[in-house]
Amino acid sequence: MSAYEKLKKLGIDLPPASVPVGAYASFTRSGHLLFLSGHLAKKAGQPWVGQLGETIDLSEGQAAARAVAADMIATLQAATGDIDRVTRIVKITSLVNSTPEFTDQHIVTNGASELFAEVFGGLHARSAFGVAQLPMGVCVEIELIAEVST
Amino acid sequence: MSAYEKLKKLGIDLPPASVPVGAYASFTRSGHLLFLSGHLAKKAGQPWVGQLGETIDLSEGQAAARAVAADMIATLQAATGDIDRVTRIVKITSLVNSTPEFTDQHIVTNGASELFAEVFGGLHARSAFGVAQLPMGVCVEIELIAEVST
Amino acid sequence: MSAYEKLKKLGIDLPPASVPVGAYASFTRSGHLLFLSGHLAKKAGQPWVGQLGETIDLSEGQAAARAVAADMIATLQAATGDIDRVTRIVKITSLVNSTPEFTDQHIVTNGASELFAEVFGGLHARSAFGVAQLPMGVCVEIELIAEVST
Repeated sequence: MSAYEKLKKLGIDLPPASVPVGAYASFTRSGHLLFLSGHLAKKAGQPWVGQLGETIDLSEGQAAARAVAADMIATLQAATGDIDRVTRIVKITSLVNSTPEFTDQHIVTNGASELFAEVFGGLHARSAFGVAQLPMGVCVEIELIAEVST
Repeated sequence: MSAYEKLKKLGIDLPPASVPVGAYASFTRSGHLLFLSGHLAKKAGQPWVGQLGETIDLSEGQAAARAVAADMIATLQAATGDIDRVTRIVKITSLVNSTPEFTDQHIVTNGASELFAEVFGGLHARSAFGVAQLPMGVCVEIELIAEVST
Repeated sequence: MSAYEKLKKLGIDLPPASVPVGAYASFTRSGHLLFLSGHLAKKAGQPWVGQLGETIDLSEGQAAARAVAADMIATLQAATGDIDRVTRIVKITSLVNSTPEFTDQHIVTNGASELFAEVFGGLHARSAFGVAQLPMGVCVEIELIAEVST
């Protein structure tokens, strides 16, 4: 099954590719590696603001992480023209806006990891950690390295 | 001297390769680059919980970072089948669970860097910084990129 | 125009390449990728200490980020012998020492991104986020991946 068929089966319509909020690009490519910029969680097109352990609970955090992953697939589409050229999600780094007490960054991040696994198959390498604050106050930011075939 | 002989000389028995705590893999490979997921500090197999500047002092932090490095060498073994195929530790990123006052993340991280240098020779690129919180409350998390020959 | 001519036009004399503050190297290379270690903000050769949202305002933060970028170009010079061999700034990660309330990490980071764009042309991928604390208490730390031609 192609990645497109998997998206369809999951009921996911790719959002429009997100626009960088500064002097950078959404992605760059070097050889077979595609580097995606940190993507900020959005809800209905607006920054998904909040902090885990305070205003955002675990299930909302996972939903935000999954939404970031969908946005990143839209960027992969913009970068490749055909996401079936993505041969592997190599690595993600997940930054979770966290109170000093919140220690479930890995569970929040599964929201993104599971969508990538569902669409592309296989598992990626990953780091997840808690940060003091994120641009625009969003609850989750994720960056990604993918391998592309051509 | 092979990396195995260096480990033996240092009195280090590689621990069992660690198991991811979520929907991801301990490592992925793309071309000659091996990407290792963030590895959490463990002590006697349990999360090495605490914060630098609060419950963990500098020398314990360095010991935790060194323990993470040993775990990562175990993952390199699992990934390559032969750590002498590791031609270079390219880069590590060290996340140190820190109070707002603690500013010796680079000294903590030397605990890992020195072990990598002892075992593989050469020096790697590195970033080290303080984070608000880490998965399961551990004191140090490190991720790594290595270059492998075959 | 060469990168050197652009630096001259901008009135930037490259500082001496910075020296790592631990058991690591300023850069490593694997294939066509050059990995630069996290570079700490400096002012007149000393750590540029402070926190965004507290002791450092937005314009000073941008100046610090721009200073880090100049230091990184000096490291690129040391790594390549000729910065015109840098074919692309692939990715930067910007760690901004932030109070829990500060949410303009992306605007701070533009201070670095704009200098890279001015000198090398094109845009890079990027992540920017707020961290609890940085080595030596500096306000900004940036790491970088560049692509080199030979």
